[in-house]
Amino acid sequence: MGRRMGLDGAKVHSVFALERPDAAGDFLFVCEHASNKFPAPFGALGLDAATRRAHVAWDPGALGLARGLAERLDGTLIHANASRLLYDLNRPPHSPGAMPAKSELHDIPGNAAVTPAERLKRTETFYLPFVAALHAEVARRLAMGRRPVIVTIHSFTPVYFGQPRAVEFGIIHDADPSYARAIHAAAQAQGGLDARLNEPYSASDGVTHTLRHLATPYDLDHAMLEVRNDLIATPEDERRMADRLAPVLRAALNELQRGRHRADAR
Amino acid sequence: MGRRMGLDGAKVHSVFALERPDAAGDFLFVCEHASNKFPAPFGALGLDAATRRAHVAWDPGALGLARGLAERLDGTLIHANASRLLYDLNRPPHSPGAMPAKSELHDIPGNAAVTPAERLKRTETFYLPFVAALHAEVARRLAMGRRPVIVTIHSFTPVYFGQPRAVEFGIIHDADPSYARAIHAAAQAQGGLDARLNEPYSASDGVTHTLRHLATPYDLDHAMLEVRNDLIATPEDERRMADRLAPVLRAALNELQRGRHRADAR
Repeated sequence: MGRRMGLDGAKVHSVFALERPDAAGDFLFVCEHASNKFPAPFGALGLDAATRRAHVAWDPGALGLARGLAERLDGTLIHANASRLLYDLNRPPHSPGAMPAKSELHDIPGNAAVTPAERLKRTETFYLPFVAALHAEVARRLAMGRRPVIVTIHSFTPVYFGQPRAVEFGIIHDADPSYARAIHAAAQAQGGLDARLNEPYSASDGVTHTLRHLATPYDLDHAMLEVRNDLIATPEDERRMADRLAPVLRAALNELQRGRHRADAR
Repeated sequence: MGRRMGLDGAKVHSVFALERPDAAGDFLFVCEHASNKFPAPFGALGLDAATRRAHVAWDPGALGLARGLAERLDGTLIHANASRLLYDLNRPPHSPGAMPAKSELHDIPGNAAVTPAERLKRTETFYLPFVAALHAEVARRLAMGRRPVIVTIHSFTPVYFGQPRAVEFGIIHDADPSYARAIHAAAQAQGGLDARLNEPYSASDGVTHTLRHLATPYDLDHAMLEVRNDLIATPEDERRMADRLAPVLRAALNELQRGRHRADAR
């Protein structure tokens, strides 16, 4: 894994990037589907340019939103630098969804017959370095007496298998629902978005792998955020959504921590 | 992490060792408390030689038993090369038990006031490389279509806080009890050992960190084995225990897999 310092101080890696590593805040943001790049030697998996720009290849808007939240909340961000069609970092290596042959309506030719050797190569290239880096960020904070809050940032398509989706902001949890529920309540209190708990997916759909592996075993507060991608379609929209959601995440965490202080005081 | 090939083909690392990495069997054995070495620059934490040989520093007999099981079951073994008093690899970095100031009746002078910087250094030296290596072994097998069975090997002292312990063989599980129950049943069928489920500890005591982090999130069959250390006090005893337990582990896995085939066939 080559490393160099980027212009903004971020550590740039070949298959993922760690931004604002020395941020002092509570939040550790994760964006597994940040990128629609198809680096050599893997290539474009037989997809045309339009498909490589579409939501099957990545979560449009998620990286911009994640960066906006990390800046506003003094958080650290780790994100993918390659398409989830090469390796979906939110899936374990044996999951068919880690290298899907079909995604929604799209066939992925280069994933039609992934051999075990190819699956191993992509696991070693994309998944292992990303997990090791994220785990190290978690473990270092724990060693220093900090309790990171893990928030994964995703976007979803407004129309799925031909059906429009009304939900605008989904908040999903793994084993411990506490922080997701607090975010949902804070979003309801703020108003303006159709916010729903465990929509458009939930842990039972296998979408919480990152949280299950790196938050739940350490009893860390966590949530997976899903924003409908028509609401974060431009850099200006991403900024507006970060302006809207940063105080929601902060207020929800404050509320959760206040509740624990009250419980401790009893 | 320097690596070199050992005489027996094992990859030797400074703080852990990976033995029989290319074994073809189902089992991935883990021995977090294999060693009572206190490598520089950390040193002996103010302990005398007798304490460094005692069970507070390591699990006597566990490494010999783990090696015997790995050989008999064609498994891979990863084990610590440093005392658990420097870093207990079966604890997360924020746990007081990761670098205990007191262990049973023994004060550990070098752990009396571990600073955050020292905690970070030990976490980076011992815990992160070990977890990364074990996680890579798990992920590579999953990518190749194999489902490793994670078995951690421990020993416990016959007398604890002055009380003798009758249990001889404890089988402990994290979230999924299936394989632990199958081992318990196979040990009961074999006879000859006082075998008990979730004794002398259980997951609620925080002793299943390795399993919780690296087996449960991947839905892998797993168990933590605890053998009373007076039964594995010599190399000959370790061999006899491996002869006894290898068929128990194998029979239990066969039974578990047969049960799943029956369930699938219905």
